[in-house]
Amino acid sequence: MTRTTTHEHTPYHPGTVEALRFHTATAAFRDGTDSPREYLERCLTTIAEREPVVRAWVVLNEKAARQQADASTERWRRGEPLSPVDGLPIGIKDLLETRDMPTQMGCAAFAGNFPKRDNAAVWALRRAGAVIVGKTVTTELGGPEPSPTTNPFDPRRTPGGSSSGSGAAVGARMVPATIATQTGGSLMRPASFNGVWGLKPSQGAINRGERQTASMTTHGVHAGSAEDMWLVAVAIASRAGGDPGRPALHGPATPPPGRIPSTVAVIETEAWARLDPVSRSAFEQVVAQVEAAGVSILRRRDDAVVERFEQALVGVTDLGSEILAWEHSWAFRDLATDRPDDFSARVKRFFFDTADRLGAAGYEEALRTRAAVTATYALLGTRVDAVLLPTSSGPAPVRSGDVPGEPPVRWPTGDPGFNFPSSLLGAPAVNVPLMAVGGLPFGLQVMGQPGTDARTVAIARWMGENLVPVGV
Amino acid sequence: MTRTTTHEHTPYHPGTVEALRFHTATAAFRDGTDSPREYLERCLTTIAEREPVVRAWVVLNEKAARQQADASTERWRRGEPLSPVDGLPIGIKDLLETRDMPTQMGCAAFAGNFPKRDNAAVWALRRAGAVIVGKTVTTELGGPEPSPTTNPFDPRRTPGGSSSGSGAAVGARMVPATIATQTGGSLMRPASFNGVWGLKPSQGAINRGERQTASMTTHGVHAGSAEDMWLVAVAIASRAGGDPGRPALHGPATPPPGRIPSTVAVIETEAWARLDPVSRSAFEQVVAQVEAAGVSILRRRDDAVVERFEQALVGVTDLGSEILAWEHSWAFRDLATDRPDDFSARVKRFFFDTADRLGAAGYEEALRTRAAVTATYALLGTRVDAVLLPTSSGPAPVRSGDVPGEPPVRWPTGDPGFNFPSSLLGAPAVNVPLMAVGGLPFGLQVMGQPGTDARTVAIARWMGENLVPVGV
Repeated sequence: MTRTTTHEHTPYHPGTVEALRFHTATAAFRDGTDSPREYLERCLTTIAEREPVVRAWVVLNEKAARQQADASTERWRRGEPLSPVDGLPIGIKDLLETRDMPTQMGCAAFAGNFPKRDNAAVWALRRAGAVIVGKTVTTELGGPEPSPTTNPFDPRRTPGGSSSGSGAAVGARMVPATIATQTGGSLMRPASFNGVWGLKPSQGAINRGERQTASMTTHGVHAGSAEDMWLVAVAIASRAGGDPGRPALHGPATPPPGRIPSTVAVIETEAWARLDPVSRSAFEQVVAQVEAAGVSILRRRDDAVVERFEQALVGVTDLGSEILAWEHSWAFRDLATDRPDDFSARVKRFFFDTADRLGAAGYEEALRTRAAVTATYALLGTRVDAVLLPTSSGPAPVRSGDVPGEPPVRWPTGDPGFNFPSSLLGAPAVNVPLMAVGGLPFGLQVMGQPGTDARTVAIARWMGENLVPVGV
Repeated sequence: MTRTTTHEHTPYHPGTVEALRFHTATAAFRDGTDSPREYLERCLTTIAEREPVVRAWVVLNEKAARQQADASTERWRRGEPLSPVDGLPIGIKDLLETRDMPTQMGCAAFAGNFPKRDNAAVWALRRAGAVIVGKTVTTELGGPEPSPTTNPFDPRRTPGGSSSGSGAAVGARMVPATIATQTGGSLMRPASFNGVWGLKPSQGAINRGERQTASMTTHGVHAGSAEDMWLVAVAIASRAGGDPGRPALHGPATPPPGRIPSTVAVIETEAWARLDPVSRSAFEQVVAQVEAAGVSILRRRDDAVVERFEQALVGVTDLGSEILAWEHSWAFRDLATDRPDDFSARVKRFFFDTADRLGAAGYEEALRTRAAVTATYALLGTRVDAVLLPTSSGPAPVRSGDVPGEPPVRWPTGDPGFNFPSSLLGAPAVNVPLMAVGGLPFGLQVMGQPGTDARTVAIARWMGENLVPVGV
C-alpha cells in the first residue's frame, strides 16, 4: 500500500476519540469563564488547521459568524439565551438557501447562485441564536458525483455523500454540529464514515423550506454528541415546524434520556451480502452486547414478520433511485439542456436517463410499491421497539475514479444499500458512532417507526452510553 | 350610478356567450383549412383589442409563441401532433417559473426575477406542444392584495384573485385556456366571476414543480370549454405526474363524457348567509333542474351526515387562512425585512402577523382540525356522487379601496367562503359557467371526493350540457 505524508493519520477508535460538544460548554457561558465567541474562535482555529486537506467548506462567513457569536455572548452573560443552541457554531449543507451566502449545490450551473433567502431550517436556527459559520460541501445536486471533500481520518478515502462537508466538518471537530440532508443515504452514510452522530428524522418532521420537490428527502443533523444532535433538531422543528401539512418532530425540549428497548429486530437488507466480513464481525459484537443486556433480538430466521419485511426490502435501492430520479426529472432539465457541460455524466445518467425510462406511469407504480413496503414495516412496528442494522457496508472506501470508456461508477461515495430503507420508509434513523474497522469509523444504525424520533434517539443514546465501543 | 365609456359592456348570459374552444379547431389543422399559427393570430388580435382595459397579462411572448405555433402547424400538417393540445395558446399564471419569461409573482420584491427554469406544468405543456403565449397577472404572491386586472364583463369590477389574469384572459376570449392556481379560492372564484370553466384538481394531482411549499395549493386550469379544460390537465399530469409522492390526476386521455349523478348533496357552508338573494335564487333554479332530472338531492335538513359536514365546515375560512399564512411564514420574511416597501400592508397583516400569532404548535393544531373536517367529508362520500354549491357568494363585486386609517379590507378580490372547502379538503372542484346575475357571470360548483377528478368533471359536464342556463 502506497502512503504519502499527507495520508498519514491517527487510527480512529470510538472509545478514545473526543468529539466536539456544545451542550457541555454553556454553563461556562453563563458564568463568563467561556463565551460563544471564544468557542467559535476555537472552531475557526481547527478549521484553519484542517480545512486545507479536509475541504469541508464551500464558503466560510467568519465575519458574520463572529458578529453572531458576540451577540450570543451578550445574551448568555445577561442570562437570556434564545435557546439551548444559542451560540452553537453550525455549518449548513450547500443545498439549503442562505440569505448571506451563495447556494451553489455543488453544481457548476449554480455557480454564483444567491437567492438571498434563508431556508426554513436556517431561518429557525438564526431565531434560536445559532452561529451560521458557513456552507458545507455537497456532492453535485446531492447526487452520486463525488465532491472534493476528504475523509478526516484518511484523506485517500471518501467522507461519503452527498452531505460530504457536513459529515467531515463534525468528524474533524471543526464545529459541533452541521445540517445535512438525505434522499438515499446522504446523511447516514457520511455519519458512519466520519464517526459522528446523525439524525435522519421522520419524513416531514423538519420543515425543508424551499426544498420540497422530492417525496423522500429530509433535513437532519450531524453532531459530535447525541445531546447536541437533538437540541439542534428541536430548535428547528419548534420554530419552523414540519414540512407543509406534516406534523413536526415531536419530543422533549431537552435530549431524551437513554432508554433500553425490550425487543429489537436485526435487519439485513439486500446490502448484507456486500458487508465485508470484518465490519460484519464488529456489528455482530455490538448485537451480542445488546442481547447480553437483556434485550430480545428478532432476526429473519426467528420471525415471519421480520422475514416478510426483509423480502419487501429486496430491490429498494433501485426503487428509491428511480423515485428520486423521477422527482428530479423536470427541475434541472432546462439547465442541463442549456449548459450540458455544467452537469456530470453521472447525474445525467442516473437522474435524467432513469427518469426518461421510468415515465409518469412508472413513477406512480414505484410509489405503490413503496406504499406496500411501508405497510410491511408498520407490521414490524407492532413486534419491536426499533430496528438495528449497520449504517454502511463498512468503513469509508478509498476514492476511486471512473474507467475511461466505461459507464460511470454507480456509487463512488459509498454503497447506499443500508440507507435507502429509512429514506423509503420515511422512518427516523440515528447513527451511533460505536465501531472502528481498520482504524476507521463505522456506525450502528437504529431505525424507528415514522413519528417516533424521540424514542429512536433515546434507544440510540442507550446504545451509545451502555455498549462498549468495538474496534476490529 | 356613474358610468363612463370605458365601463360599457354587453350583459353576460351563459346561454348566448360563445366561449373560445380549441378542441373543435384541430380537425381543420389536419386538413390545412386552419392552422395553429392562424389560431394564435386570432388570439393575439383579441388580446390587442381587449388588453388595454382588461390588463390580464404581465408579459406577452409573441415572438416565441409564433415560432411555437409554426412548429405546431408543421406537426399537424404531417399528421403528427404531440398531443391533443399541440398548438393550444395558453397563458401561465405568473406564480409559476418559466424559462423564457420573468416570474415576478405580482410582488415588487420579485421585479426582474428570472430563474430561467420551467415549472413542471410548463415543462410538460411544452412537451405536449402547447404554445406559451405569456404570463398572466397574479395578485401579490397569490394573496389578497388586488391586481390591476379588470373584469372583462365590467371593468369596474374585480376579476377575482389570485388568478386574476388567468380568469380574465379566458373570459375575454383572448386564449382558450390558462394555468391558474388555488390555495384558498384563487382558481374557483375567478372562474365564477369570468364565466369560464375551472378545474381545481385533487390535492397533488398535478405536479406543482418548485411550488411545493404549501400543503393545500393546486395548479389547475381555466378554459372556455370542459373539453379543453380536461385535455390541458391530462396533458400535464401524464407528462409531469403528480406532486412528489402523490398519484397524478387519473382519467381518460379524452374528456370524460357527461354523466348524470344518482345523488348529490347541496352544501351551504358558512358563506351561505353572505350569498345575496338574487344569486341564491339563480342557484336554487339550477338545483331544481337537477332534481327535476331525477337526481336525488340531500340537504342538511334531510340527512345527519350532511348536517355533520356543514357543522364541520364552520370556521374553515379562518382555518385555511391560518394554515396558508403559516406556510408562507418563513419564505418571504427575509425579503420583507430587507424591503418592507415591496410588500403590501395586506400581505404583511394577513400572512406574517397571522403566522406569528399561530406559531408552530398552533399550525399543527390547525392541521389536526383539517384532518377532522376531511374525515367528515369522506363519510359524505359514501352517501353522494358529488356536492353542489355556488362557486362564489354572487357575481364579481365592484372594486373598492381601503379606507385610510382603517385596517385593510380582508377580501377585496371577493369572498372565498365557498372556495376554502375544496382547498382544505384536497377535493377536486369544477366551475360550470351556468348562471348570470345582473348580466354578470356566476358559477355552479361541483365538488367530488379526493381522487375522483374524472368523475367530478363528468358530472359537471352533464350539468353544463343538460341544464338550461339561468339568468336572473
